[in-house]
This record gives sequence, C-alpha cells and structure tokens, in this order.
Amino acid sequence: MDTDRPRRRGRGQQRAAADTRRADYRRLINTFPRHKVFSDDQVEAIHNASLRVLRDLGIRVLLPQGRQIFAKAGARVDEDTQMVFLDPDMVEEAVARAPAQFTLKGAVTDRDIPIGGNAVMFGPGAGCPNATDLDRGRRPGSLQDYNDMLRLIQCFDVIPKLAPCVEPQDIPVHLRHYDMMRGQVVLSDKVPFIYSRGAAQVEDGFRMLMIARGLSEDGLAADPWCSTVVNTNSPRQLDVPMTQGIIDFARWGQCNVITPFCLSGAMAPITIAGALTLSHAEAMAAITLAQIVRPGAPVVYGAFSSNVDMKSGAPAFGTPEHLKTNVGAGQLAARLNLPWRSGAGSASMAPDAQGTYENMLALWGAIMGGSHMIYHAAGWLEGGLTISFEKFITDVEVLQGIAEAFQPVPCDPDDIGFDAIAEVDPGGHFFAASQTMDRYTTAFYEPFVSDLSNYGQWEEAGSKTATERANAIWKQQLAEFTPPETALQDTGDLDDFIAHRRQAGGAPMDG
Amino acid sequence: MDTDRPRRRGRGQQRAAADTRRADYRRLINTFPRHKVFSDDQVEAIHNASLRVLRDLGIRVLLPQGRQIFAKAGARVDEDTQMVFLDPDMVEEAVARAPAQFTLKGAVTDRDIPIGGNAVMFGPGAGCPNATDLDRGRRPGSLQDYNDMLRLIQCFDVIPKLAPCVEPQDIPVHLRHYDMMRGQVVLSDKVPFIYSRGAAQVEDGFRMLMIARGLSEDGLAADPWCSTVVNTNSPRQLDVPMTQGIIDFARWGQCNVITPFCLSGAMAPITIAGALTLSHAEAMAAITLAQIVRPGAPVVYGAFSSNVDMKSGAPAFGTPEHLKTNVGAGQLAARLNLPWRSGAGSASMAPDAQGTYENMLALWGAIMGGSHMIYHAAGWLEGGLTISFEKFITDVEVLQGIAEAFQPVPCDPDDIGFDAIAEVDPGGHFFAASQTMDRYTTAFYEPFVSDLSNYGQWEEAGSKTATERANAIWKQQLAEFTPPETALQDTGDLDDFIAHRRQAGGAPMDG
Repeated sequence: MDTDRPRRRGRGQQRAAADTRRADYRRLINTFPRHKVFSDDQVEAIHNASLRVLRDLGIRVLLPQGRQIFAKAGARVDEDTQMVFLDPDMVEEAVARAPAQFTLKGAVTDRDIPIGGNAVMFGPGAGCPNATDLDRGRRPGSLQDYNDMLRLIQCFDVIPKLAPCVEPQDIPVHLRHYDMMRGQVVLSDKVPFIYSRGAAQVEDGFRMLMIARGLSEDGLAADPWCSTVVNTNSPRQLDVPMTQGIIDFARWGQCNVITPFCLSGAMAPITIAGALTLSHAEAMAAITLAQIVRPGAPVVYGAFSSNVDMKSGAPAFGTPEHLKTNVGAGQLAARLNLPWRSGAGSASMAPDAQGTYENMLALWGAIMGGSHMIYHAAGWLEGGLTISFEKFITDVEVLQGIAEAFQPVPCDPDDIGFDAIAEVDPGGHFFAASQTMDRYTTAFYEPFVSDLSNYGQWEEAGSKTATERANAIWKQQLAEFTPPETALQDTGDLDDFIAHRRQAGGAPMDG
Repeated sequence: MDTDRPRRRGRGQQRAAADTRRADYRRLINTFPRHKVFSDDQVEAIHNASLRVLRDLGIRVLLPQGRQIFAKAGARVDEDTQMVFLDPDMVEEAVARAPAQFTLKGAVTDRDIPIGGNAVMFGPGAGCPNATDLDRGRRPGSLQDYNDMLRLIQCFDVIPKLAPCVEPQDIPVHLRHYDMMRGQVVLSDKVPFIYSRGAAQVEDGFRMLMIARGLSEDGLAADPWCSTVVNTNSPRQLDVPMTQGIIDFARWGQCNVITPFCLSGAMAPITIAGALTLSHAEAMAAITLAQIVRPGAPVVYGAFSSNVDMKSGAPAFGTPEHLKTNVGAGQLAARLNLPWRSGAGSASMAPDAQGTYENMLALWGAIMGGSHMIYHAAGWLEGGLTISFEKFITDVEVLQGIAEAFQPVPCDPDDIGFDAIAEVDPGGHFFAASQTMDRYTTAFYEPFVSDLSNYGQWEEAGSKTATERANAIWKQQLAEFTPPETALQDTGDLDDFIAHRRQAGGAPMDG
C-alpha cells in the first residue's frame, strides 16, 4: 500500500527552512561517536540485576487482562497482590523478538521516519497541561494552542513526528481524542501519536487514522502508522490504561514507545545505576508483554530518567546526571539491540539561558548515547508542565544546528583549496576570492533565530533577545500557515465518523 | 623549586562551589569519546596541503629578527617581500620537538594545570574591549571591570587559568600591563597570562612574575609559569609583536598558545577544510619558529576557526560550522601530537538563549574534538567585543555541568541497589529509602544558577530569569571576595618595580 502514496513534498511553509540549505533534516543520521559511562561488565551487571528484579520482586499489573496474558505465557502471577513474576529466560526470549529497526509511516513516503540503526529523530516537548508565550502568558492549554503547536511542528522538518505538545483542556476528556487526531491528519502529513487512554479511545484513534490514510484494517496492521507512549508507574507498576495500550498497540502492530519515567531519588533509586536498573526492568517487562501479544511488534525501548532536586523534590532535567543517564540508558538499549527513546527537556520556568542549557545538556547525552528518538527536545519548560511557543522556536534553531553538525564536511582538493589560498595575498581577505564567490550562498547554515548583525544594527532593531525574536517568528509562521496538500483534504468521512461517535457519547478515558 | 610551594587550598569564596560536591574541577579529564569529521587520509591531505602552502606560497614575517632566525635555520627568505618559505622536512622536524604534554605552574601546586593528554581546561571569554552587566549596561572596559573579572575567575575552580577578559581602557597602553599583571598575582593564585605586545612589555611581565613567585631567571625558564596567545594575521602573515612574542616566550620557556584566527569566508577559505588548511599552515610556521628558538619550548597548537555571516560579514560563533571545525582542528592537532587550544564563545549581543546555545554548540565540538584548552567558554558576547558579567555566571554553570558529566558513574552492587529497589513497594517512592537517606546530600550536582523550585515559588521570588539571578550571584561573589592567602601578600618588591618602570616611562606597546 506504500507504493501509490504521493511522493511530492509539501509546499508553503516548509520552504522557509529548506530553501537556504540543501541539507535534508527529515531523516537524520547520528554521525557522532557513542559514549559510554559503564563498562561492558557493568552493563551486564545492571541487566542481570534488572532480570532479578523481575523474577524475585516482580511487577504489579493492574489490568486483569494483562495479568492473564502474562500467566498464559508462563509467568507466575499472584492475583491477590496483582504481582507478576517473570523468568529471565522468558524475558530475554520475548525481548529478542522485537525488531531492531522499523519505519514509521507518514501520510507520504517522504514523511516516513526510520527508527533504529544510526537514524535519530527529534520530538517536541509533549504532554504539557499549560502553554505559554510572551503575549498571552501562562495558561491552561486549549485546542487552539494544541493545533497551533501542530502547525509549528509541520513547519520544521527537523521535527519529523507529531506529538501532543499541550493538553487541550477546553475539550472534555471523553471527546478530546477526536479533536486531537483530527488536527493531526488535517494540519499535517507527519506521523501522528495516539494517547493510551483506554481501549475505546485507542480504537477510535486507529479508526480515524485508517480513514485519514485510506487504510483497511490489514493495511493499518501491516506497518506502524502511529505511536503511543507507555509510561510505567514506577516503581514496578503498570496501570490499567498503560497496560491496555501495550496490548492494543501490539495487537494492531502499531509503535509502542515504552518509557519508564524513573527519576533518581523519587520513583527510583537515588543512584544513576539504580535508577537505570529499575527503568531497564520495567521496560523489559512491558516489552515482554507486547511481544507475547504479537511477536515482532514494533516497540521502542524508552528510558526517561533524570534526577529530582533533593531540596524541593521537584524533577530536574538537563542536569549532569540527566546527561550521564541518557548515555547509560543508550548502553542498555544497545545491550537489547532495540531502538531507544530518550528525553531532553528543561526544568526552567522561563525560556531563558537555563531553559536553553538544560535542554542542550540532555540532548548532548541523548545523542552521544545513540538515542533514536529524542523527545521533549523543543519547547518543554517546568519539567513538562508548560510548552513555550518561543522556546519551541529557539530550540528548533538548536536542533537544526545539530542536524547540520551531522552533515559531512567536504574535503576534496577543491574544498582544501590550495588555489584559493594562493589567490589571496598575505594579510588580505577571501571575501572576493573565486572560491568564496562560487560558494557563499550555500556555504553555511543560515540561522533563523540568531542575530548575526552587529551591536549597532541590533540596537536599532530594538535590542531584542533571541526569545523576543522567536515570538515574532512563531507568529509569522502561524500567520502564513497553510496545511500541506499531502494532509487530509476531504474530511467528509472523518467528520462523519467523529459525529457518529460523539452522538454515541464519545469514549471514556480508561474504559 | 616546586616542592616548597604551599599545598594548602584557598579559603573563602572557593568554598561556595566546592563544599556541596566532592568533584574536583581543578584538573578535569575529558572522558568523552573523540569525534572525527575527516578520514585519516583527509587529515593527511590537509596536512600535506598546509606544508605545500608553507613551501610554495610562504608566510610573510614582518619582524626582521624573525626572518633572520628562519633564514639561519635554513629557510628561504625574500627580504624584499618579507616572505619566508619553509621546507616540509624543516617544519616537521621542528614541530616534532614540541612537547605533547606539560604543566602550567600556578602560585601553589594545587593551582598547576596539566596541558595535553586527556586533560581539558576551560578559559573565560578574553580580549573584549567592552564590558556589560544588567546594572551598568555596555561600556568600554575599565581596570575595575578587569580586576572584577579576575576576582570572579578566582571564585570558580572550573576556570583554572586567568585571562584578560576585558581591556582596561582607562589605563594608557604603555602602563596597562603593570596593572594587568599586578591584579593577577595579588587577586589570584591561578596561572597568569601576558600579552605579546612587544619585547619591553613581555620582559616587564616576566620580571613581575618572577617577583611575585619568588623566582630567579633560571627558575622562571625551567617551567612555564604563564602563557600568551599569538594570533597570526591570517592569511599567511606574522606581525611584529606576535613574532616577537613567539621568540621571547620560547626563549624564556614560557607557554606560547599559537592561534591562527581563520574565519571561513573572511581571512580564510570559505570551506571548513580550506580554513583548517590555512590555519594548520600558519600554526606550524609559528611553532617552527618557537622550536628553532628553543627546541622543546612549550607550545600549544591553536585553532580558532569559525565562519562569518555571509550577509553581514560579521564573525559568527557557535554555529554548526564552528562545531565541526573544532572537531576537525582536533584531528589536525592529534596528527602533530600537540596540546591544542580551541575556542567556544558566542556572536550574540545579549546573554540570552542565543548566547547560551552558541557557546554550547562550540563547546560540544571542542570537547568532542579533544581540545585541551577551551578559551572564551564563559561570558563572551558579540564575537569577543563584550564580556558579560551575567553570561560569565550562567556559562560557569554550564561548565560545571560538563565537569560533572566527566565524572565517573559509580556502578558497584550498592549503586545498582537491588536492596533499595526491594525496599520500596510498587507505586511507592524512594524519598525515604535508606539508600536515599545515605546519599541525598551528595548524590547530585547542586546548581547555583538554575532554579529547581516550582512555578509558584519562582513567581513569588520575582519571576527572575537565569540571567537576572546571575546578576545577583556575581555581585554577591564580588561583595564577599577576599584574595586567597596563596596570592601575593607582600607587594613591596612588586610595587617598587612598577614604580621604577613607570618613572622610566613605562614600555611601548610594540617596541
């Protein structure tokens, strides 16, 4: 079903970033070397401790169907305590069935995203209850905010996948998922997400996606067309909607991004090694469930572990510990030979220097840890409580800089340029050299946030900070936005489906 | 002469950063893996092209004494054009004499800085004509600003070496170097710099340093007790004071940090490979001169190459090109087996998100390129036109974060903490776990700029940005500052020397 999808690129707002440089930000290859914080023996010790946790301490599974599936596959289950105990062999066999690489399918081939191997993708800040910008301040997220963030994601190739940046709190929860999916397929051609908020909402999501992409049930199940995030309830617990999500996404062959959220000192041991041991155990348990349901189901090994501030108890992101944890998690993911999802992000309250350096320290660890999906890499403030429109823009500038840093450095004789050096006298300049004239329009990345003028020009333009310039940028992007031709144009069937489901009362969040 | 230097640590302001964590920021080991942007063959091609530049195109040396030294060593010199042509064998033999590692000597052993190998050190923004802060705005640098920056450097171990952050423009140039050296030895026990601004000023600098450290001429010459930066006048030119500096520092066995400043598209080819070819050639020519003067003289291979903005012609820093150039320069330094100095920094006009991400992208490249001395890593705005007191502080937070990221991740059975995991029930928390109680005071780096409270507390405290908090921090550091006991206490001899030299008319800048 892939072959007849249109291959033309989107038009309009995509141009802004694409025309100035030839670098393709859609399918990035991480060319940086992999870092290690653990020796191979230490990785093995953590892995074995995690297996021992699952065998001897177990994991509590709140959904009865989840416990049944585990029990049927041979796990020891205590129905009184809802605890599931997993044999190491069972875990390792199940995990080994998961694919090391797969492709997430977009509305068009050019929006497909390779997951695993040397590929890497950035996701925006997600899951925020609040939105903020310099004009309107901080407020509870609305559908308008949610859709505007989808539009902004669509504008930048360096974020190839959609995400629920902000919660549309003005829509009742039993109807919210209709608007959330409709926005994704109407405003964008990128790979959508579906929240694991109960079987009924997930089923609705799949149905809407099939309508939007023109897929049969078999067509959907043949490839991963969307993803969900499953957060375990650390320590050692899988709640009802999350367990249901694992089962439903695996059954339909859609992408489970299984992400324990183990903050050192809070929901996990205070040590990096301990937090990763717990995270690794929980991830393996959830992956095991997915692989029991459907061997070979696409899953992503997630680890989003940072630390808390021991004074306030608040989650911290972009700390040195977060950087090192990202590197260590990458080693554990590589041990399992699975694609892995990390997190960047920031604890800062404002889109300021702190917000910038926190996100970059976390990104640094994620990239050097070989992460394949780096979530929360743009716009995430307050440890995920707020999405900032301006920070989204300044972070995209950083992500494009990293994407450029992944590109090769040409080094043939013309690039080395002995003749160019010979052309310019000692103490002269290269502004007018023939090599310069041939290349100056495309030689360098052209930033869209950074001001590279001089102090006088900058003062004349109002002495604006990068964040203030970002304010003008996102407003212009939204003002000029038109959905790509490759997004869903005829919404009739989708709207009929939604009207029908609304009339039937929508779908409960956990049901 | 080293053995009887006091080993006690400074007191007072050093405590602020040191008491909360046990990590030693004074002698950092770069534990990150090295990146490569060139293949080994490409490194060889650049190296050979650089040698060809020196042989066939030559380098103009404006100081007659410099040309004489080159000629005497066998170089072909054209006195009419002041051009010096170097045979590849001569260059390679000379460069091979330079040490791969050495130690810069501080006032006390504990302030010594290892240069080369796996060591890495951060230097602050330097050479700025202007200073800025939130209270006083942007103004020409003064002696007060200069000394205040020395005080701030002294406060943070993560910057182990002094630098001329800002130019004291209120002191006449023929007297300026007296105040600049006096400040360094009276306010600090860290390794000082001396500007290469002519033989007389350099000689004055060495004399003052001998007085401050209690060294004879032989004692000074036995070890590098200070450093200078030699910027070539790219392309292919060494001016009078710089050539004189190379000769004088080599003769006295002091540290020459030889740094071509090759901006792609301006003073160097528009390509990264071309800019590095020119930079490599110039560095090798200057290192050759130093090694002719004194075989084995301590030199640092410098490369501070970024690009210009092709619209404005203004230097850009912290661009993706800067990151990649730092990596490539590291490969060329490794080819010569020399310690190497890179640059971070920022083109931003303000201590904002741009200033933060530019500095971090450049740092990222420098660290992954294995740089041993990373200059301009704190406070540098406008491509070096202005030092920002607030940005110095927020950048130090970043540098401490990187220093923490270099520290090992403990991973023994207690760290993995199976028992800690067993102690906490599913869905519980680790705040009160015994492992947490044992470790919580020292488990994590405690940031001094980042606000890790919550939004309500942050609002109550005035909704301050990181830069605004940094403003309070530098003012408090300066208010509480007392020079370390290990700085020069009895200034009698030094002041006598300065008074004598002032009476004699000072020292001309280029003489």
